[in-house]
Amino acid sequence: MVKVAILGFGVVGSGVAEVLTGQGDGLHKKADELIELKYILDVRQFPDSPFAGCFVQDFSVIENDPEVDVVVETIGGVGAALDFTERALQAGKSVVTSNKELVATHGPRLLAMAAEHQVVYLFEASVGGGIPILRPLSDCMAANDILEICGILNGTANYIFTRMVQDGIPFAQALKGAQANGYAEQNPTADVEGHDTCRKLCILSSIAFGWHLQPQQVPTKGITQITLEDAAYAAACGRRIKLLGRAIAEEDGRICAYVEPHFVSLENPLAGVEDVFNAITVKGTATGDVMFYGRGAGKLPTASAVVADVIAAARQLERASYRPWQPNRPECIVSPEELATQWYVRLAQGELTGERLTIDQGQKGESGWLTPAMTKPALEKALAGKDVLAVIRVLD
Amino acid sequence: MVKVAILGFGVVGSGVAEVLTGQGDGLHKKADELIELKYILDVRQFPDSPFAGCFVQDFSVIENDPEVDVVVETIGGVGAALDFTERALQAGKSVVTSNKELVATHGPRLLAMAAEHQVVYLFEASVGGGIPILRPLSDCMAANDILEICGILNGTANYIFTRMVQDGIPFAQALKGAQANGYAEQNPTADVEGHDTCRKLCILSSIAFGWHLQPQQVPTKGITQITLEDAAYAAACGRRIKLLGRAIAEEDGRICAYVEPHFVSLENPLAGVEDVFNAITVKGTATGDVMFYGRGAGKLPTASAVVADVIAAARQLERASYRPWQPNRPECIVSPEELATQWYVRLAQGELTGERLTIDQGQKGESGWLTPAMTKPALEKALAGKDVLAVIRVLD
Repeated sequence: MVKVAILGFGVVGSGVAEVLTGQGDGLHKKADELIELKYILDVRQFPDSPFAGCFVQDFSVIENDPEVDVVVETIGGVGAALDFTERALQAGKSVVTSNKELVATHGPRLLAMAAEHQVVYLFEASVGGGIPILRPLSDCMAANDILEICGILNGTANYIFTRMVQDGIPFAQALKGAQANGYAEQNPTADVEGHDTCRKLCILSSIAFGWHLQPQQVPTKGITQITLEDAAYAAACGRRIKLLGRAIAEEDGRICAYVEPHFVSLENPLAGVEDVFNAITVKGTATGDVMFYGRGAGKLPTASAVVADVIAAARQLERASYRPWQPNRPECIVSPEELATQWYVRLAQGELTGERLTIDQGQKGESGWLTPAMTKPALEKALAGKDVLAVIRVLD
Repeated sequence: MVKVAILGFGVVGSGVAEVLTGQGDGLHKKADELIELKYILDVRQFPDSPFAGCFVQDFSVIENDPEVDVVVETIGGVGAALDFTERALQAGKSVVTSNKELVATHGPRLLAMAAEHQVVYLFEASVGGGIPILRPLSDCMAANDILEICGILNGTANYIFTRMVQDGIPFAQALKGAQANGYAEQNPTADVEGHDTCRKLCILSSIAFGWHLQPQQVPTKGITQITLEDAAYAAACGRRIKLLGRAIAEEDGRICAYVEPHFVSLENPLAGVEDVFNAITVKGTATGDVMFYGRGAGKLPTASAVVADVIAAARQLERASYRPWQPNRPECIVSPEELATQWYVRLAQGELTGERLTIDQGQKGESGWLTPAMTKPALEKALAGKDVLAVIRVLD
């Protein structure tokens, strides 16, 4: 019998308790007969919870109980979560988490610490919620060199775009609707400014390329400036606006990683990903493009990914852990400024070289353009002195 | 050092040799430094191959060489492939295959034999080519009960539909084009009659539900009767024709599995899967729908899936094998006749209850219809005495 402790009884932590024990809505049975929930750490009291007998408030109870084999960290952030993760690993317990900020920031150290103590540190739920992506990328695509990762990694941002396009409402109103529906937090900064996408991209990139890409090395642009006119221009040229995280391997082994909104061609399967869904495209040398699609967040999807990792840890898959990430390699990072693509440009007046786009709405004298493929500096040169309302990268 | 023998040097077998050694187009490096290709079994001679030194013609050389840890079976069929697989497992060697017919037919016996000899039998490449699907389904979704699997599992059939719709050419001509492009075999029966889809569905279902579903238990209908008019009616109601394999878990634990063409709503991400691509949607109790998408066939994608399994076997992941499949349970099989769905019906003349569809082409007096949701017997009752040109199930 493998005994589990959950740190934090929030949305994900309570979902993990339900999936582990089969005591949740729509769940049919216990995840695994060999796994038992022993502790839940939370500062709050939950006297009416079906798990009331499991609660403790002092981490050292878990740390010092040799019966606990696997610790599930769903506290979030890089404070107590980091402290407890380190102490659990040092006490010889495997750790499973959904905490993308902690993994993206301290992943290499925690993976090394797990290997040193012959336990595992697993974090499938940190990217794409319930979508299996890290293990397929790490194991099933092991015979490939990865050429590119491109993903819609934030369901909140994608939901906002979908509402803007389908309901014709502006960004601020779509954001309010997302908050009202529980799809966006009251402080939506991490979602709409792209930080959440950036952290997930760093985890994917580190697994794909084997060295730690740090969030602060990834130029990140959010979606707060996107207008209904931009969405109309996208439709006018057969594209949809999506916030993408991309990491592209150059021939020389350097990585070009960035987060920004794109005009995505309807021919690209990412264009059809709507609402709160996520999708990640991975291009391998042998497989070509494969895509993983599903709900990127939510209590039960995320909890089920956590519990799959708990099962893997419990079955003592010694090699279940991700391979160690080499240290960060700043010399291997290419600026996305150098990535030549087409661009969408909205001008208040004047003209550009490229394909002209027209929309019904919009200001007097304005125009939309699709430029030829060029780098960011070349684009800036072409736009010098012009009255530019918007610039968005294009993905075919 | 783990030594590997490949059985059969056809398209997949030669691809496996290339991916293992990194000696193929677009491949950057050896799949794994710890794995060495020792033998290739083929009745033919390949004196000019870079692997010329590896060829043997007698399986007993491989069977009796204790240095061989992993045997890759890419012979196909259920003759020599079955004999060699059994002998390899009995000799204590792990076996990896892309042979869907063998797995779908004899999977339970071979999995049990592998467990008995403490080796593994892996077959990620047998479904979806290079798309990671079996391991994610088996491991990453382990905390879910699976409610439904629905997939476009045959690239040839999907390519034919895409050409019919995009180029406006009839089935026979689209099939010829597929053969000319190497996407269909000279004998296309297994692809166009749905047998290939059926075998893959049986493998997915057996992994998802834990007991062996046999191909002959799955009602299977192919695509040879689909006309351009059917495709036009599909477009007229916002749908696309796709050949789907579906396995649906009923509340009582019985499984409804079948293969047939469907009108698929454009709202469903399966509708956007074109050309030779495959996609598999899996609905779990906790994750909801997740989808896996990519090239379902081809030399290097399939080879890369085989080699990922070789790496897993080589790393001695004792638990890497799929859990055993319980024996077949005929009492748990529900006929798709009982599955109530909408139907598309094309009538030479007359009317039906439902939504009327119109197309520009077509015969004088004909009409298309979308019925309300009903079972197959109810539909047949409604169609009694009518001049019916086509009937296709609808998926929203």
